[in-house]
Amino acid sequence: MGLVMGLAVVAPPAQKTLAQEMPAQDKPAQEKPPLGFTASSAQRQRALEARFDASLNVGNLRTWLTRLAARPHHVGSPYGKENAEFLAGLFRSWGYEATIETFDVLFPTPKTRVLELVAPEKVTLSLRESVLKEDATSGQTAEQLPTYNAYSADGDVTAELVYVNYGVPRDYELLAARGVSVKGKIVIARYGGSWRGIKPKVAAEHGAVGCIIYSDPRDDGFFQGEVYPAGEWRREDSAQRGSVLDMPVYPGDPLTPNIGATKDAKRLTRETAPTLMKIPVLPIAYVDALPLLRALGGPLAPDGWRGALPVTYRLGPGPAKVHLKLAFDWNLAPAYNVIARLRGAARPDEWIIRGNHHDAWVNGAEDPISGLVALLEEARGVGELVKTGWRPARTIVYAAWDAEEPGLLGSTEWVEAHAEELTKHAVAYINSDSNSRGFLRASGSHTLEPFINEVARDVADPESKVSVLERVRAEQIADATPAAAREIRERADLRIAALGSGSDYTPFLQHLGIASLDLNFSDRLGGSYHSIFDSIDYYTRFRDPGFVYGLALARVGGRTVLRLANADVLPFQFGALADTIGTYVRDVTRLADDLREQTDEQNRRLAAGVEKLVTSPGEVYVAPAPKDPVPFLSLAPVQNALARLQDRARAYDDAVRALMNGGAEPPASVRQSVDALLIQAERTLTSEQGLPRRPWFRHQIYAPGLYTGYGVKTLPGIREAIEQREWAEVDRQTIATAAAIDRLAAQVARATALASGAGTPPSAARP
Amino acid sequence: MGLVMGLAVVAPPAQKTLAQEMPAQDKPAQEKPPLGFTASSAQRQRALEARFDASLNVGNLRTWLTRLAARPHHVGSPYGKENAEFLAGLFRSWGYEATIETFDVLFPTPKTRVLELVAPEKVTLSLRESVLKEDATSGQTAEQLPTYNAYSADGDVTAELVYVNYGVPRDYELLAARGVSVKGKIVIARYGGSWRGIKPKVAAEHGAVGCIIYSDPRDDGFFQGEVYPAGEWRREDSAQRGSVLDMPVYPGDPLTPNIGATKDAKRLTRETAPTLMKIPVLPIAYVDALPLLRALGGPLAPDGWRGALPVTYRLGPGPAKVHLKLAFDWNLAPAYNVIARLRGAARPDEWIIRGNHHDAWVNGAEDPISGLVALLEEARGVGELVKTGWRPARTIVYAAWDAEEPGLLGSTEWVEAHAEELTKHAVAYINSDSNSRGFLRASGSHTLEPFINEVARDVADPESKVSVLERVRAEQIADATPAAAREIRERADLRIAALGSGSDYTPFLQHLGIASLDLNFSDRLGGSYHSIFDSIDYYTRFRDPGFVYGLALARVGGRTVLRLANADVLPFQFGALADTIGTYVRDVTRLADDLREQTDEQNRRLAAGVEKLVTSPGEVYVAPAPKDPVPFLSLAPVQNALARLQDRARAYDDAVRALMNGGAEPPASVRQSVDALLIQAERTLTSEQGLPRRPWFRHQIYAPGLYTGYGVKTLPGIREAIEQREWAEVDRQTIATAAAIDRLAAQVARATALASGAGTPPSAARP
Repeated sequence: MGLVMGLAVVAPPAQKTLAQEMPAQDKPAQEKPPLGFTASSAQRQRALEARFDASLNVGNLRTWLTRLAARPHHVGSPYGKENAEFLAGLFRSWGYEATIETFDVLFPTPKTRVLELVAPEKVTLSLRESVLKEDATSGQTAEQLPTYNAYSADGDVTAELVYVNYGVPRDYELLAARGVSVKGKIVIARYGGSWRGIKPKVAAEHGAVGCIIYSDPRDDGFFQGEVYPAGEWRREDSAQRGSVLDMPVYPGDPLTPNIGATKDAKRLTRETAPTLMKIPVLPIAYVDALPLLRALGGPLAPDGWRGALPVTYRLGPGPAKVHLKLAFDWNLAPAYNVIARLRGAARPDEWIIRGNHHDAWVNGAEDPISGLVALLEEARGVGELVKTGWRPARTIVYAAWDAEEPGLLGSTEWVEAHAEELTKHAVAYINSDSNSRGFLRASGSHTLEPFINEVARDVADPESKVSVLERVRAEQIADATPAAAREIRERADLRIAALGSGSDYTPFLQHLGIASLDLNFSDRLGGSYHSIFDSIDYYTRFRDPGFVYGLALARVGGRTVLRLANADVLPFQFGALADTIGTYVRDVTRLADDLREQTDEQNRRLAAGVEKLVTSPGEVYVAPAPKDPVPFLSLAPVQNALARLQDRARAYDDAVRALMNGGAEPPASVRQSVDALLIQAERTLTSEQGLPRRPWFRHQIYAPGLYTGYGVKTLPGIREAIEQREWAEVDRQTIATAAAIDRLAAQVARATALASGAGTPPSAARP
Repeated sequence: MGLVMGLAVVAPPAQKTLAQEMPAQDKPAQEKPPLGFTASSAQRQRALEARFDASLNVGNLRTWLTRLAARPHHVGSPYGKENAEFLAGLFRSWGYEATIETFDVLFPTPKTRVLELVAPEKVTLSLRESVLKEDATSGQTAEQLPTYNAYSADGDVTAELVYVNYGVPRDYELLAARGVSVKGKIVIARYGGSWRGIKPKVAAEHGAVGCIIYSDPRDDGFFQGEVYPAGEWRREDSAQRGSVLDMPVYPGDPLTPNIGATKDAKRLTRETAPTLMKIPVLPIAYVDALPLLRALGGPLAPDGWRGALPVTYRLGPGPAKVHLKLAFDWNLAPAYNVIARLRGAARPDEWIIRGNHHDAWVNGAEDPISGLVALLEEARGVGELVKTGWRPARTIVYAAWDAEEPGLLGSTEWVEAHAEELTKHAVAYINSDSNSRGFLRASGSHTLEPFINEVARDVADPESKVSVLERVRAEQIADATPAAAREIRERADLRIAALGSGSDYTPFLQHLGIASLDLNFSDRLGGSYHSIFDSIDYYTRFRDPGFVYGLALARVGGRTVLRLANADVLPFQFGALADTIGTYVRDVTRLADDLREQTDEQNRRLAAGVEKLVTSPGEVYVAPAPKDPVPFLSLAPVQNALARLQDRARAYDDAVRALMNGGAEPPASVRQSVDALLIQAERTLTSEQGLPRRPWFRHQIYAPGLYTGYGVKTLPGIREAIEQREWAEVDRQTIATAAAIDRLAAQVARATALASGAGTPPSAARP
């Protein structure tokens, strides 16, 4: 992912820096008012931010992390409940109106977990992570959830094993070409290459009866670096827990799609809930995977499929035969969302929402407590300002979500339960989750791209002392080709990545169309993710020992919230969005062109028997059926809509600039009317009918991939229709996407008219 | 490498094949006379080839391989001498005039080999390959050369260890950026990425005092497939012997550059011989590398440097400390070249030379006996034709070289000793070496590209029954991008690869400018290379169990020799060469452009401190010095010369076509005069002064890379000047290369004039 932005200097850097290569008009960023502020309100805002910064105390982050991660605290656990109450108490002590809002969600926990190799020899696998003297909480075995995948099916299966690489659809094409079927088999897939829930889903679609997911040391173990406790990488007996709920269809409680999982909500039965996994699935550590992979025969796995275990990777099936037995308690658990409000003084009905989850798989020092403690310090800082008599213009809502880990349950149920008021009042949702030392990753709605660039320009990086924006620009340049580096240098703002899924912004952005940002600092991912070693000891040795990046996140998050809450006019802009959608149109066009060329070429090779000719004796090659040729597709409706949006965006920028620089304070009524239109702007990009095959997802520009899970699919309706080779659907989705862009263009035009004084009353944007 | 050619059907294939996509004019390949033949002589030639094919007997290949690989037979060994005498006897029995021509060459063998880890713990390494009951000759320990690198220095060094990846120059740039110096250290490099001799050479240039080269299982071991004896890949205790003579400077006896190493030749001393390695070097197996790499600390090795051993790859230096002690017997050994002649009836002074070496590192069933037995059966088949009263028009010379393994010593000394007569008489040199099942690899002089395409069109692949040409075209298409696949389909001929070094063609092609081809069949490389397991048992289980690809090589080699020997006019053409050099000009231009862009970008990043900004605490980054910008370079002289060559080539093709299709037999005197010019054509591409820094290499179009070893550098003078950033040298080499191309164009014009009857007497081509 990665933040993608402009830059400016905060502290004068020691050596000649990137800042000296910056486009000139951006240089005096400190002096130019932030987006949405007049010159005089900007001065007040900067003074406020300075007081906010001064009030922050890094010691609090350490204290709270030590408290919150002291014991395992998954949804439904005693310590999870204690944490929720502790959090509510903190918010109240800082002057917030805090409540705990509870939902009752389906949350299975394991009763039985058996995995054994039964042929060619019998090996029973331990499925246990070690207790380490170097890790104080690793011994809390009574409270730890064992290694498992939530929403796996119950099952007791014995079958031959097949290795399926990452277990994504194209892996099965290769297996088919090698004559390997998974029908009636148990597959073993490695973590990576997709979100984990995709692996058993695709396996089940191909007829597998069970699925094992292991962490290969190539991706997540000794190949990457020294393992814990000597180093930060995943040790051989550590396994990655995690949900396999079919979240790309809908996240949240599987029994209550579209509605809040309140006590008396009408629930689906488990048998009819479409997001529950159909086959048993179990995650294992690489020490347990080793005997399984060593016992596999069959064709050699292709080069790119081989990991770092000291074995010759083979596909199977067999002679390895495996017995997998899983049974779960299928109980409802209470999810405790902590919601803390600070009512806006001038525009209380405009809500800025800022959230981070509090539940973990085990102790979760990093995931999610590292992000949560930054949010807490940020909220305390805002509370300090209130104690001095200041009030935000708009309402600020801090949320600590429960039950994120099993499938964004706390946030999704809250959003579904409050959909109507959120649709009306929510300005933006600002998310965080895990945090560590490294580079600012900001992603989300491109209507906020210029805004978040400004924020990142004004926060210093704790290690290098340049701005966090400049540092991430350096990272992007370091990784770029010379041509890409030029674009990064020359564009005033860094591009922010689009959001797929994987944290609590999903219901806000993709279900309701609330402009959203996700913020964190990170560098390489270490290997404690979703294990008992995501602990206080680990975090304070390897991730952010001085909590300085936690403090930096509090500064970024705090500025984001304070500017959104106080701006004279909300700081949305639309040119960057139009520009970004333009890049998506080019991507999708290239996707179709490449697919057309590949299809033609593959059909030609099939007809000529090329693959058969190069197959060695003893190797199997099964020719696939030829594919329908890819027609030429017209994205002109989207391109035309984009041209209109680009025009309207420029006009809006001019109008707002005139309004803000007019000398006189812009009238409150105009500002409020413009706000009302801006709040609804992102909503215009959603459609009531949602995306094909998953109507819960309504945003027409961003969605998680149906077969990637977390990975974003931009222009999802069009893109996935191409990937699924549904040519008629491409045309329908092109029309729908163009219509969404046109709705936004019209909304922007209305805001422009209002801002330039030729105002017409705002009208609801959704048709 | 890989042959790169056109195609036609030999046996009608079962399914619709590539042949049906072929350009129409090439279809009736069987009916069109081969290049250089008139319609009537073509008929006689085809009948001759049919008789040749019919006389071949696959059983002979098995018999001779079993005989020749029965015992270790390196240069200087008793069995090597027995083999030479056996070979001479065979040739004589088939009617050849066979002699053994002996040279006395420097060939060191080990007296002492010690390698031990001395810190942080002491581990003495075994340096031994196993005796296996599944491999009958693996127990011949008394006659086996131990694992070593020939021409390593004597030495006794103890120092910290540094891991240098493949040990090529760019690896040292990365080490420097990480603050790691090899000065005074012992380096450990993995095999691959360059010819082995480059590794210690570059290490010594950077101040290392010793070098260990190991086979990483990622490149050559269990990562690639099941290991021996269960499978064909390198087992953990198997090490790759091999020469580390600085062959890119000159191959052959290190004491007698440019002259034959006859008994009384004037020799350099060992101290003044520039191609001897300056530091001790030892190859080891991965079981011995494991404790060394496990004991390394220091920075993490970059992702692409990590192999398949179950360790975290680190750079060092230390704490691993190593003791390496090597001592050698520096004796002269007799190298026995077996030379067998069959005098041409019509043009005895035009020589077709066909060679394969006979010495091995140990038993060498594959390398080189598999290629040698195909050559033998080919020579026997030619002898059978002679017994029926046929004589070749030109003289045929079969050669079995000794001492190829330590550095092409047998062939190089022979070529140097006979340079004058070879320059006068040699038409072409056809090489082979190892052979196994797979795809035809033909590489060499592009003046023979159309010719060898025709040969490959007329030989059937033993597995698929299509022509060997069609099968390799299928392989190339299977590996190609859609755009590259189109070129391969549409071009009448497949492109042949250029020759670098690595076998006995080098002195012929690159020292004297004799048009050369290298021929073999192969697929993936298994893991017995230069080990005791390159044995009869291994070869007959994994490489070519039925010897059918040996027979296919005899058919390809036989046709090549018979057509060159019998053609009315030698089958050289020049359009493909001009076209190919055009692609090299584009490559070299792109190289300069990329280097310019990279240099600019890197200097810009250095000035802006980008890398410093992204370096994490605890990591070391040492900024390199900025580099001089890359000027724009003019290759116009080469391009203009190429345009002239292209014109002359077309005119020559027209003239020869008219000559051959004239109805009347072309007069013998004209044909002989044209031949005389054609024989000298490739010579015109050499220059007396040779390449910068290595005058022994005289060819201006093809050379092995100074820092790749085997890998070819085309347009070497220009290309290496760019790589070494010697801008003035680029201009000088551009002039020199253009002059060579112009000499060839003039020679082609002279041949055209003669062929079209406006003949002027041939003149010596070399200035």
